[in-house]
Amino acid sequence: MSKVESTATPRSRRGARTALRNIRKQRSTTMLPALKRKLPLVEPMDAEQIEKIDNASMSILEEVGVVFRDPIALEDWKKAGADVRGETVRFDRGLIRELIKTIPSSFTYHARNPDNNLPFGHDHSIFVPMTGAPFIVDLENKRRWPTLEDLANFHKLSHMCPALHSSAHHIVEPMDHVVAHRHLRITYSSMKYSDKTFMGMTTSPKNAEDVMDMCAILFGDEFMETHPVVTGNCNANSPLVWDETMLGAMRAFNKRNQPVLCSPFVLGGANTPASTAPAVAQLNAEALSALAYTQVVRQGCPAIYGHYLSTVSMRSGAPMAGTPEISLMNFMIGQMARFYDIPWRTSTALGGAKTFDAQAGYESATTLMAVIMAGANYCWHSAGWNEAGMHCSMAKFVVDAEQCAMAYRMAEGIRWDDFDEALAAVRDIGPGGHYLGHQHTQNNFQRAFFMPKLFDNNNVEQWQADGSKEINERALEEAKGMLDAYEEPKLDQAIDEALLDYIARRERQIPAVDALNNE
Amino acid sequence: MSKVESTATPRSRRGARTALRNIRKQRSTTMLPALKRKLPLVEPMDAEQIEKIDNASMSILEEVGVVFRDPIALEDWKKAGADVRGETVRFDRGLIRELIKTIPSSFTYHARNPDNNLPFGHDHSIFVPMTGAPFIVDLENKRRWPTLEDLANFHKLSHMCPALHSSAHHIVEPMDHVVAHRHLRITYSSMKYSDKTFMGMTTSPKNAEDVMDMCAILFGDEFMETHPVVTGNCNANSPLVWDETMLGAMRAFNKRNQPVLCSPFVLGGANTPASTAPAVAQLNAEALSALAYTQVVRQGCPAIYGHYLSTVSMRSGAPMAGTPEISLMNFMIGQMARFYDIPWRTSTALGGAKTFDAQAGYESATTLMAVIMAGANYCWHSAGWNEAGMHCSMAKFVVDAEQCAMAYRMAEGIRWDDFDEALAAVRDIGPGGHYLGHQHTQNNFQRAFFMPKLFDNNNVEQWQADGSKEINERALEEAKGMLDAYEEPKLDQAIDEALLDYIARRERQIPAVDALNNE
Repeated sequence: MSKVESTATPRSRRGARTALRNIRKQRSTTMLPALKRKLPLVEPMDAEQIEKIDNASMSILEEVGVVFRDPIALEDWKKAGADVRGETVRFDRGLIRELIKTIPSSFTYHARNPDNNLPFGHDHSIFVPMTGAPFIVDLENKRRWPTLEDLANFHKLSHMCPALHSSAHHIVEPMDHVVAHRHLRITYSSMKYSDKTFMGMTTSPKNAEDVMDMCAILFGDEFMETHPVVTGNCNANSPLVWDETMLGAMRAFNKRNQPVLCSPFVLGGANTPASTAPAVAQLNAEALSALAYTQVVRQGCPAIYGHYLSTVSMRSGAPMAGTPEISLMNFMIGQMARFYDIPWRTSTALGGAKTFDAQAGYESATTLMAVIMAGANYCWHSAGWNEAGMHCSMAKFVVDAEQCAMAYRMAEGIRWDDFDEALAAVRDIGPGGHYLGHQHTQNNFQRAFFMPKLFDNNNVEQWQADGSKEINERALEEAKGMLDAYEEPKLDQAIDEALLDYIARRERQIPAVDALNNE
Repeated sequence: MSKVESTATPRSRRGARTALRNIRKQRSTTMLPALKRKLPLVEPMDAEQIEKIDNASMSILEEVGVVFRDPIALEDWKKAGADVRGETVRFDRGLIRELIKTIPSSFTYHARNPDNNLPFGHDHSIFVPMTGAPFIVDLENKRRWPTLEDLANFHKLSHMCPALHSSAHHIVEPMDHVVAHRHLRITYSSMKYSDKTFMGMTTSPKNAEDVMDMCAILFGDEFMETHPVVTGNCNANSPLVWDETMLGAMRAFNKRNQPVLCSPFVLGGANTPASTAPAVAQLNAEALSALAYTQVVRQGCPAIYGHYLSTVSMRSGAPMAGTPEISLMNFMIGQMARFYDIPWRTSTALGGAKTFDAQAGYESATTLMAVIMAGANYCWHSAGWNEAGMHCSMAKFVVDAEQCAMAYRMAEGIRWDDFDEALAAVRDIGPGGHYLGHQHTQNNFQRAFFMPKLFDNNNVEQWQADGSKEINERALEEAKGMLDAYEEPKLDQAIDEALLDYIARRERQIPAVDALNNE
């Protein structure tokens, strides 16, 4: 029995503490800066094809129109000069172009720890964990309903994974807390267990206002007026519908100058045409209509071109992940977002597998590679997503996070700074030699080649001696080790108390029983 | 018990046959034509950086030189005007450029079934299964030594997978056959169970000559003189050494005008400098020296710029797969091969995992995406590779083959032919509708979105009802079903007999006991 395992005596407890400190030392938890991409992007459309999509989208906006199921938005659009008939809004393309022109093409996300601020837009990318899983596959590899504690654990892991740039929000749904109060606890958890940027709930306009108020406690009201500190997500009901919940939440964010992802929710073939280019034309129209609306609400407010992308199996109607058309659409949408000069969000590590098996690996890696080559700025759902978003896997979460670090390294491109020095090594070693002992190798091995911790590259005998563990098991051990080593980035005590006071007050005000959950 | 399972009566046997015919109908086994890529490539180097690599490689060739451990090659090089001292050959860059100029930049691979001929080079890519595994993970998911029957099964699967363009050669090592005779049985198996192109053994100069003789029986001597019908692989012993076995085999192929892959065997950091760009400079020098030699042997003979790429863990010395630097090197080497206008081979679905778990999925998909974006022509090791090549997995083989079909679809790029028709559907459906019933969807669903057969996208309840099978289990069922449905593409009887006669004669001539295997 090792000292770490025995906690019977003070002496061994000291031993355990030392061992733990060593583990911490081995594990770098310092956040990588926002990725600045240097690899050229995959851009399959020429200028004419980009204009073909743009023109098709503008025709849809002008002639078919978009339904805004929200009286305030309809009133806003009338004032802004759109053609409003019933709930259908038709837009002159000149109006759309005029409105989206004021969306900042880049800005900085401010985190409560300024070291974790993130330049955003253009050639920067950030990786954000998944959101919204109603199930967890937990540390014991069991699929079950998640709790607030599970959510806190995901926020802790987000805090510790260097390539994750955000703690997101409800990575898993905390089912042990009433729906009506959940947004408060989720937001608090994002803020408390990580000092990276995070996401804000948009489950209702009122909930979004609560998030804004909590952000004001954390960052100050005035600061928020001029600094993006949080991100919301608003989904369209494709085809071509925005609803009251999403539009109200959007307004709550935009009024405080906070950005939302304007995200058509694409199930290619079911709610778009069964063809990639036309599907992109439709989702582009949907995104543009919401992006334009953010500027009606508040001119100059940051906003992000979003979407959720899947294609639907024409056999079963099920959404698919990692398919070639999803990659192609990512390449195309990236080009459209850059055409409009608006930062762009996509989804990264999507998997439809039911367990963390090879299917999940293929799906996630394919999508991640496509997204990096497509030049996405806001890489959402970058860790944990499986079963078409129905569960977040603890094991997959830490593996995906390492995959993001690998994609990050690739996107940084080629190093040339040691080229001459390394060529001198080629001369030193000559034919038939080996490089492991050479000074250049010694000087460079730490940074030369990425060494994934969660991939096992030992031979089969060593792997068997280590317990014949597949990556799921190794990743669960890693997640446990990380949570054991977690150190909380303490909130200022006054702020912490103010947040808890706010939550307590709102929980008294909001009825615990609501339409969504009759507990 | 279904009719398919019962074989007791003639009636049920008929039922089984009908069921089998239905399975066959469902499964398309028609080979996809050689992929013609339409996606733009990822090319991270500018012209100056390409010249930097070229210049570094040429300096290595001029000043450090390459060891050719082979008296015939040394003699050839002297005659060709190189500077030969001992076994070290130094080359003027003018000589190298002059020699490689006569390598065809494209050609056609001829298969015994002309429908399976493959245009090769430029923007064409072909997918070729893995080679050389000393172990199989078999249909019962058991890791063991492979047999000739196992090899035949892999050749049958290669024949049936639409996106695999070759049956390769010793996908697994048939351990039940003496080493000295193996090349004969392997070649026969490649030729017999598939009518696609294949690879030829290069395990010794004599073995390579046997392969050439067998190809002459299959295709005719004269035909071979003007038509590439087979591919050999020759590995360098990096850094900068070519040995007698490989050079002798190369000559055997080149004399009959058949192409080999000139493949530096890169363990980045161990036998190259620990840095991507300098590693590429070294392997480029290695490849060029062999490519040039093919033209010394026979001017105008087709040849392929090759390499095997891994990076080495500086912790354990183990080769890694799916790392960011492997992707970067693939992008760079693709640019170098195009700079010299020579067709290019890389490795595709490499995995270091010990089982077909998520690690294998991530590794393989990452590499496949990089290779497609890098524009490789000869995508070797495209199916089955796991455990750093130590085993070929039956399950992974069929999944990888489907992944190749997906990459194929992606690389074909965007379809625009139904754009206007689909936009009309957007107008028909309007906001809030759905597309599944629309005529455009009905007309296009078959080709619109790739539906991977081996990914499960059903919900968890359906997946459980189907037996809670992970992809490994589903893929093994698929492989079994394919082998049950296999139909042999019959060899001409006279050719078949001539091949068997040749093998029988050579097996009498070659001692069964040799240095490699004392059975």
